[in-house]
Amino acid sequence: MRDGPPPPRDALDPADWAEAARIARDTVDAAVRHLAEVRDRPVWRAMTDDQRRRFEAPPPAGPTPLADVIGEVFEGVMPFPMGNVHPRFWAWFMGSSSFTGALADFLAGIQGSNLGGGNHAAVLVDQQVVGWCRDMVGMPAAAAGTLTGGGTAANLVGLTVARNAKAGIDVREEGVAALPRPLRFYGSDQIHSCHRKAVEALGLGNRALRRIATDAGYRIDIRALRAAIAEDRAQGLQPACLIANAGSVNTGAIDDLVALADLAAAENLWLHVDGCIGALVAIAPENRHRVAGLARADSLALDPHKWLHAPFDVGCALVRDGARLRQSFGISPEYLQPAPRGIASGPWLHEFGPETTRSFRALKVWMMLKEHGIARFGRLIDRNIDQARHLATLVGAHPRLDLAAPQVINIVCFRYDPGGLDAAALKALNVEIMLRLQDSGLAVLSDTSLGGAHALRVAICNHRTRHEDLDLLVDEVVRIGDDLAGR
Amino acid sequence: MRDGPPPPRDALDPADWAEAARIARDTVDAAVRHLAEVRDRPVWRAMTDDQRRRFEAPPPAGPTPLADVIGEVFEGVMPFPMGNVHPRFWAWFMGSSSFTGALADFLAGIQGSNLGGGNHAAVLVDQQVVGWCRDMVGMPAAAAGTLTGGGTAANLVGLTVARNAKAGIDVREEGVAALPRPLRFYGSDQIHSCHRKAVEALGLGNRALRRIATDAGYRIDIRALRAAIAEDRAQGLQPACLIANAGSVNTGAIDDLVALADLAAAENLWLHVDGCIGALVAIAPENRHRVAGLARADSLALDPHKWLHAPFDVGCALVRDGARLRQSFGISPEYLQPAPRGIASGPWLHEFGPETTRSFRALKVWMMLKEHGIARFGRLIDRNIDQARHLATLVGAHPRLDLAAPQVINIVCFRYDPGGLDAAALKALNVEIMLRLQDSGLAVLSDTSLGGAHALRVAICNHRTRHEDLDLLVDEVVRIGDDLAGR
Repeated sequence: MRDGPPPPRDALDPADWAEAARIARDTVDAAVRHLAEVRDRPVWRAMTDDQRRRFEAPPPAGPTPLADVIGEVFEGVMPFPMGNVHPRFWAWFMGSSSFTGALADFLAGIQGSNLGGGNHAAVLVDQQVVGWCRDMVGMPAAAAGTLTGGGTAANLVGLTVARNAKAGIDVREEGVAALPRPLRFYGSDQIHSCHRKAVEALGLGNRALRRIATDAGYRIDIRALRAAIAEDRAQGLQPACLIANAGSVNTGAIDDLVALADLAAAENLWLHVDGCIGALVAIAPENRHRVAGLARADSLALDPHKWLHAPFDVGCALVRDGARLRQSFGISPEYLQPAPRGIASGPWLHEFGPETTRSFRALKVWMMLKEHGIARFGRLIDRNIDQARHLATLVGAHPRLDLAAPQVINIVCFRYDPGGLDAAALKALNVEIMLRLQDSGLAVLSDTSLGGAHALRVAICNHRTRHEDLDLLVDEVVRIGDDLAGR
Repeated sequence: MRDGPPPPRDALDPADWAEAARIARDTVDAAVRHLAEVRDRPVWRAMTDDQRRRFEAPPPAGPTPLADVIGEVFEGVMPFPMGNVHPRFWAWFMGSSSFTGALADFLAGIQGSNLGGGNHAAVLVDQQVVGWCRDMVGMPAAAAGTLTGGGTAANLVGLTVARNAKAGIDVREEGVAALPRPLRFYGSDQIHSCHRKAVEALGLGNRALRRIATDAGYRIDIRALRAAIAEDRAQGLQPACLIANAGSVNTGAIDDLVALADLAAAENLWLHVDGCIGALVAIAPENRHRVAGLARADSLALDPHKWLHAPFDVGCALVRDGARLRQSFGISPEYLQPAPRGIASGPWLHEFGPETTRSFRALKVWMMLKEHGIARFGRLIDRNIDQARHLATLVGAHPRLDLAAPQVINIVCFRYDPGGLDAAALKALNVEIMLRLQDSGLAVLSDTSLGGAHALRVAICNHRTRHEDLDLLVDEVVRIGDDLAGR
């Protein structure tokens, strides 16, 4: 049973703690340099084939000294980031991480606690952070919530509870095939693709999610929504849930949340607010009026890894009637019984969400909110929106730049247009502008399609961006565009 | 628009990087002390009401210096862990984290990259780690996979693909209500509760998951399974998927994977293997024969945050026919179009799983596998199984201890039985033994129910455990039991 040499004791702990500490302190210094100098590096750069090939090796059979492994990370991984910590990264919609958040993830790993639940400090931190999220958006104390891996999971939680609450049968037991009338969910044609993922996952099918047209501001057309609900009722379907955009992914449009809450109440529908982009505008003094009505949601998704800049990943789902959340996810198997005292006497957090084991992602949000305070995050959100307004103004003032959608919060869609090009040529020109910006490492932005027309898209969710970065962007877009257009 | 004092520049970055580095280095030193001295501290201890109350405060409006925030963590959070990093924590089934893994999470946060996809180094690391997981369990190169938050999500991925692959209709579009015949999934009465969560989430309903009786070794009864499939076919239901246990949560039982693979092939069923507990036994030289047949799974879930001791969270889902994974999760919205070059020319990893944004959880697995090599992890798994055998032997040799289930891998179920007690009294006695062990801080184990009878449960998934820790456990259980039983 114990033939051969005994395996090493405590084999995954360092053989020499002092040496491990020295390596980790060096790592900290390198990390500080990495972040302190981020502005001086390219936002993004392509990897060579040789640089890519190091990630093709089979699993390593034998050991490598820790210092060498970290050396590999600093040589092969750190120089080729996605780029979202850089002040001129404005693609898609991402937070910019933070030094404190990274340190929190280190401490969470050192403590190693499992947020599946139980009676220990991490559970209390998790519950406090969920409470802080609830307070930030103004939901009542009776709301419950859970931290998720991101907005997609947070939206799935909300839509799961909506499905179960509106089914009228025990849908957890019987499945959706037993529903007397098929459920219908409604959102605008601007909702995030994760809602499609959600209704597909939930067995409702993509066709259960009806996309409603939007107005000139890319907000859901309430009149069209009312008509769709009436039509579906007439056809024997069961309207169940409205999905409101508090910040659409394409343009940052915010649906009329007050009107949607009124409609949901009148029609006995669940109101789910996708606030992954915009819910935290609620803490920004100059702009919070834009999300009035947010707190009336039955469920709400928000993303601390966006505008709170917690390192990936951390989303949050909130449900106004907290009991409904547990009704959707609670299961008590025989090996997870509560105990009168001891470790198992705390709450089982896995009963409040789709995961069982969960990481201590609460700690980074907790430490960052403590370090900076809500007020500073609110000012930074206002600053990003001010920067978007600044960019929209620059675009509006330039003869060869066109704003492609109204700027509401921190997203600006625009295009370079020298005139005289058809849609395909205009798209090709703007895609090339986008790629040359990336190639040069100067800036990263993304693109999208609005009403069938291509547009460049700048989402300013970045605590390191300065107004002059946007001045530089406009200058470069025009310079590259003029160059490509032969002007 | 810009009234009042301008907001601080770069407000979330430290005002003084040298000061931040000093704080982080001190944090490293404290973390090293925390881990190096883990054996000398209680496994778990209760918090006082005062200690709990600090987590009831509302969101902080203003800032707190970083050093003070970290001070709060070391005063209020670190001393009250779940305990799973301690060598005498054997409750449920958890990894014990690692210093290198924690450092990896720090570096992941510093780089801040989003694993939703794109052309950058983190994506290559992620794909390499998925490939390493595939290689470790022996699945073919055509398999695809995704890193998830844990086993629950990894199992959900597998069952989602199973549902979609076996539906016979476009279930993503039409929903499960459109299925001509209701799908049936099969697992033993020992499968993890996450499978119930999964079939509920997927809209199939808990009743779609048929629990099959187990034999004396808590393995699925293949004869009963065959009968259930035939019965369901006769009733117009559609048998779709077998869920095999490669390490059950209660006892570590491993279903006959070869027989299940043969049956799945003969009956045209999907074979999903839940290997969250036992799949990595495949890399343990002395025990890998126990999971023969694993690589024949159509889908498989495993958990690097268990026996690879990566800090929470990281699970992995693998699908033999890689194209099916993308067919289940691929969506390409207009704002996420691939580009011919640049950041968007890499793969969109969100098309291979349920998440959109994802953390760089691959880095900790990558660094730990590089540092230690597969062979060392395999030896540590063998050592845990050897320790369980040692414990089972001690239990078997003691007149007042009874083994409650066969010990196969690293889980031992047993009870203290002084004789003459009814079932309720015996359970109360053993629960009290468990709680006194926790109260004293000496050891943490959990309990469960087996064939209706209560049992203490020791799951040795801990790289810090030594054989003498188990000797101590047996001595203490008997001492406490004798004390309570008045012997």
